[in-house]
Amino acid sequence: MDNRPIGIFDSGVGGLTVCKAIHDLLPRERIIYFGDTQRFPYGTRSIDTVIRYSREIASYLMSRGVKMIVIACNTSSAAALDILQQEYSVPVIGVIGAGARAACKRLNGTRIGVIATRATVKSGSYVKAIKQLCPAVEVLQRHATVFVTLTEEGWIEGDIPRLAAKRYIQDMYDHGVRTLILGCTHFPLLKKAIHEVYPDIDLIDTGVEIAHEVQEILIQKNLENNGSAGDIELYASDITDTLQRLQEMFFGKNGSQIRKLVIYG
Amino acid sequence: MDNRPIGIFDSGVGGLTVCKAIHDLLPRERIIYFGDTQRFPYGTRSIDTVIRYSREIASYLMSRGVKMIVIACNTSSAAALDILQQEYSVPVIGVIGAGARAACKRLNGTRIGVIATRATVKSGSYVKAIKQLCPAVEVLQRHATVFVTLTEEGWIEGDIPRLAAKRYIQDMYDHGVRTLILGCTHFPLLKKAIHEVYPDIDLIDTGVEIAHEVQEILIQKNLENNGSAGDIELYASDITDTLQRLQEMFFGKNGSQIRKLVIYG
Repeated sequence: MDNRPIGIFDSGVGGLTVCKAIHDLLPRERIIYFGDTQRFPYGTRSIDTVIRYSREIASYLMSRGVKMIVIACNTSSAAALDILQQEYSVPVIGVIGAGARAACKRLNGTRIGVIATRATVKSGSYVKAIKQLCPAVEVLQRHATVFVTLTEEGWIEGDIPRLAAKRYIQDMYDHGVRTLILGCTHFPLLKKAIHEVYPDIDLIDTGVEIAHEVQEILIQKNLENNGSAGDIELYASDITDTLQRLQEMFFGKNGSQIRKLVIYG
Repeated sequence: MDNRPIGIFDSGVGGLTVCKAIHDLLPRERIIYFGDTQRFPYGTRSIDTVIRYSREIASYLMSRGVKMIVIACNTSSAAALDILQQEYSVPVIGVIGAGARAACKRLNGTRIGVIATRATVKSGSYVKAIKQLCPAVEVLQRHATVFVTLTEEGWIEGDIPRLAAKRYIQDMYDHGVRTLILGCTHFPLLKKAIHEVYPDIDLIDTGVEIAHEVQEILIQKNLENNGSAGDIELYASDITDTLQRLQEMFFGKNGSQIRKLVIYG
């Protein structure tokens, strides 16, 4: 039994979907979440900058005595996972690996689709991760930038997200994609809208997948907390309207409140 | 006759609409444009940060010998116009004043609507500027964040922008707004879509309005360039896909190319 918290970080609010998935699966685990809302979005920064930001946050989480670090941000996972794994002795895992593994395991057909931010698509990280696992699979990827804004603004139901889904996914669908990785932590909020248009596409929610990985690692390494219900500490570098709205959506009006925390100079 | 260039700056690509409006009205004027795409968006930064960024860019433009500075970014105009006016001897003008003046002049009814970014709405700058000119007018404002992404992604025609327009504008329309300020330099790209839904709303394009102000000031202060066709120098702190697409949209495939320029450490 290990009652140290799990550290989770993201470039902003999207990682709250990951935080929720981990909390739902592992309700006894304590969680410290940090969302870098002040410096969001990471997707337009250089790789070096994303690495620096990721290091700063990981260093803060380590100072809080976490037993594991979960990189909930796809862009950070693409840029900094290897580096943080080398630098820290606790397990460090990222959403890209979890998403790629789940897609290969659940593969339906010969093609996997990925929708993500422009930066994640450009990094090619999903393609590399999938090709390592299933070299024969063809990966079709596409950035879905409008989805980020729609979720940030809470426009997750109705005609607009459905029309946007058609615009982003129809071409992949016509090419036989029936397994689609939601390669941005915002996108699980659009699962319902996407399924209304494409009920037969299997949507890979990287938050749910990484929650299972967290569970496996905790069991393997004997790090589980079998104590009482785990508390969630939520921090963000800037308290924005969007953050507060999503926090309520995920954790309810009386859930964990988010506190502002500046970890850099 | 004064053949020094006019300096224009924006947080990103939106200011190209302003650049084009000024070039169309004053084709003989030389223009130096700087878009801070690397640090876009300004709307989520603190006021102090936006002031610092605006000063850095203004200082660069002054070092290039401009005869006038046009702040094409609404957020910068709200945060830094007064400061830059105090610090420099050349005329400095911003889009907010131009938009407010045009809306009051063309007022249709007793209410003016403003759609802008979240930061511009929060600053209340349009409300203050309009109230100074026409104290009796009621100002209804609303942030239209999804519009920014739709224009950045080039989704400016079809159902999605029309549905988004309804979502943002219907309430103002029902309250009698027939004069609407497009309070973000991206939004003129959506004029057609908005007019398809609301043909009787007068849309105030701050780029067109500020172009007229530039012309008036040049004439008043005897700063006009009556020489040959003015060249446009376009600079940006990062060369992105969106930037290149919009540059082509505005200035054609053979128009001025954008060069990368880093003006800060």
